[in-house]
Amino acid sequence: MTSQETPLDWGTRYAARMAGMKASEIRELLKLVDQPDIVSFAGGIPDPALFPQAEIAQIYAQICGDRAQFDAALQYSVSEGDAGLRQWIVGYMAKRDVVCGPENILITNGSQQALEFLGRMFLSPKDTALVEAPTYLGALQAFSAMEPVYDTLPTGATNRTAASYRDTAEAAGGGLKFAYVVPDFANPTGHTLNIGERRELLQFARDLDIPVIEDSPYVALRYDGEEVPMLQALDCAEQGGIEASRVVSLGSFSKVFTPGLRVGWICAPSDVIGKVTLMKQASDLSSSAINQRVIATLASTRFDQQVAEGIAHYREKRDAMLSALEQHMPKGVKWSKPEGGLFIWVTLPEGLDATALLQQSVEEARVAYVPGHAFYADGSGRNTLRLSFSLPPVSAIEGGIAKLGALLRGAIE
Amino acid sequence: MTSQETPLDWGTRYAARMAGMKASEIRELLKLVDQPDIVSFAGGIPDPALFPQAEIAQIYAQICGDRAQFDAALQYSVSEGDAGLRQWIVGYMAKRDVVCGPENILITNGSQQALEFLGRMFLSPKDTALVEAPTYLGALQAFSAMEPVYDTLPTGATNRTAASYRDTAEAAGGGLKFAYVVPDFANPTGHTLNIGERRELLQFARDLDIPVIEDSPYVALRYDGEEVPMLQALDCAEQGGIEASRVVSLGSFSKVFTPGLRVGWICAPSDVIGKVTLMKQASDLSSSAINQRVIATLASTRFDQQVAEGIAHYREKRDAMLSALEQHMPKGVKWSKPEGGLFIWVTLPEGLDATALLQQSVEEARVAYVPGHAFYADGSGRNTLRLSFSLPPVSAIEGGIAKLGALLRGAIE
Repeated sequence: MTSQETPLDWGTRYAARMAGMKASEIRELLKLVDQPDIVSFAGGIPDPALFPQAEIAQIYAQICGDRAQFDAALQYSVSEGDAGLRQWIVGYMAKRDVVCGPENILITNGSQQALEFLGRMFLSPKDTALVEAPTYLGALQAFSAMEPVYDTLPTGATNRTAASYRDTAEAAGGGLKFAYVVPDFANPTGHTLNIGERRELLQFARDLDIPVIEDSPYVALRYDGEEVPMLQALDCAEQGGIEASRVVSLGSFSKVFTPGLRVGWICAPSDVIGKVTLMKQASDLSSSAINQRVIATLASTRFDQQVAEGIAHYREKRDAMLSALEQHMPKGVKWSKPEGGLFIWVTLPEGLDATALLQQSVEEARVAYVPGHAFYADGSGRNTLRLSFSLPPVSAIEGGIAKLGALLRGAIE
Repeated sequence: MTSQETPLDWGTRYAARMAGMKASEIRELLKLVDQPDIVSFAGGIPDPALFPQAEIAQIYAQICGDRAQFDAALQYSVSEGDAGLRQWIVGYMAKRDVVCGPENILITNGSQQALEFLGRMFLSPKDTALVEAPTYLGALQAFSAMEPVYDTLPTGATNRTAASYRDTAEAAGGGLKFAYVVPDFANPTGHTLNIGERRELLQFARDLDIPVIEDSPYVALRYDGEEVPMLQALDCAEQGGIEASRVVSLGSFSKVFTPGLRVGWICAPSDVIGKVTLMKQASDLSSSAINQRVIATLASTRFDQQVAEGIAHYREKRDAMLSALEQHMPKGVKWSKPEGGLFIWVTLPEGLDATALLQQSVEEARVAYVPGHAFYADGSGRNTLRLSFSLPPVSAIEGGIAKLGALLRGAIE
């Protein structure tokens, strides 16, 4: 090798935006939990016992048994997504009081791709994205690739003015670009915004004249309590329709049917859908045609039944976890009581560090969870953690929480 | 609606990078060609007659018939991609003299996603990407989202120095970031770089100390002539292995098996794969697990057979098109004679405009093609066009070329 042939120093060649992309320490730690004797409350993983095996087998057999259908399902397809699936989503959104047409829907590879597209569509370096604290880790990962800064959405406890948000964004060197929120059974807290909070959030977005991204992967999985209208439904009603709405909503089939087909959607004014369709085309041409066909058939034949089965199944698991927490958690530990979704949020006494405790929890108690600070854009929340009740069997939930309770009791004393 | 509730002006909210994303006029025009009496030489669409229907039906039945396999195939999966598929690709790359391990492979949603990732990984606004003229339209779309400028790779006809490339990039306001090339049966020209040209390109990249992106979706589809080593194989041999190579290669199952499962890959030094895996995670978590399983099974059971069938099938179509061109094209029209791939590149006499002729061609001759200027970063090449022979039946190729020849004869006279 001559000096001229010195290997390329890749680290010096990446664009500046790559500096913000780091492997998550937590993800590395959680790679260890794939062992059979560990009870994992970590990932928000749907229970595969709910995947409709016979129905999916039959749909594949039917597609593969019809040459014309098969050829179309295995071919390149349009970037906007399967026409039948988009039409089904139009009907679904109408039931949620969002009246729209196919021109308002784009199919994505799960909601994660929608988050990446919207981050790329709106954020330049130093722009501000408004998020909840804590918020969905995957949204922070998707947005962070565009080098934004984050500010925290107002809550009951804060009373910052619109001007203060504008000033803070300007001081950071960019503009206020959007508010991102998971209004139903939030990841990670399980919290649901009530209708008053939703109206306030919309008014806040109007005052700042920014879009709202409403991420709703869990909305169908409500175990008790009254349904609350979507932000997009409220805004459409007040503004006179989707074309005048500032809300972009994201939906997913991952939690109701299966994540392995990677099918989600964006519902938005047609101008936004037009732009994001160009991004889809440049990013991966289209989502898998056959996967969209499978989801379209499942959705049109058994969506309500699948939702009912999921609700019954996960409600039992949520109840098992809440009752185990009641029984086993030491004094000073608090937790959320979600009306739906997959997550319970636990707050430890101040001074305890859930990240430091995770290694001990995995090694000694054989119980895994996700430390809460990963969900804070500013890295705070060291004394919080997220538990998911979706994957372990009911029988394992009680034992796992008992062991976690014992570990925490030891840490507090 | 009060004045406070004026609808949001979306156009003012998009990030600057969105300005470069425009709907392609050509794509709009080509939407018209989906009519049964039109012979389309436009898209580079694999012939579905080659999709292995019985085998794919059987693989789906087998996965869906085994609960453990089914559950894993329908669940979330790792961002790097299916371990078995990556291992198969390692073996495939070894046959092409690229010795690597699974740590050098990431699965993507077709090659298009790899192009988008690499553009995002390397390019900041005003950076320079070096491309062929003409080059693959989808690569320009993927890269352009990051607001680069383009310079043209040297050919036999140019003798620009490395310093001149550096100066030009600096004058544009950024750095030289990579060379992008489709070395085998290029889209759109059908041209293949010979071994001398490959060595020169690698030396050029070493002189400039930049990475080379080798896009090879058609490499397996060679109809005659001698195979030429991959750029990555040549560089690995000269540099002592893949970790010291500056080449990132992209592969795809779309042209050999089926595009509808959206499975491709990146093969690169492990540092690059580590970074791009973080992008994959933030972009869509992972590719569809079941699609990767189907491709892995197809690849390990019938890759060579599928390639042999594809070669026989497309060779016949290429020959039909070359012979029809010989017979029907008026004097002054020239075309490439590709040894593989899906495309023939046609150069009309100076002064003719293939874009202007397209509407007439579609409306009168009922023949579609892609105007060549779409493949030029600078919009030149108005007198060129791309023909794909992959989709129409042999019987339609002769008639379509005859009609196109008559149209061109009229335009020339």
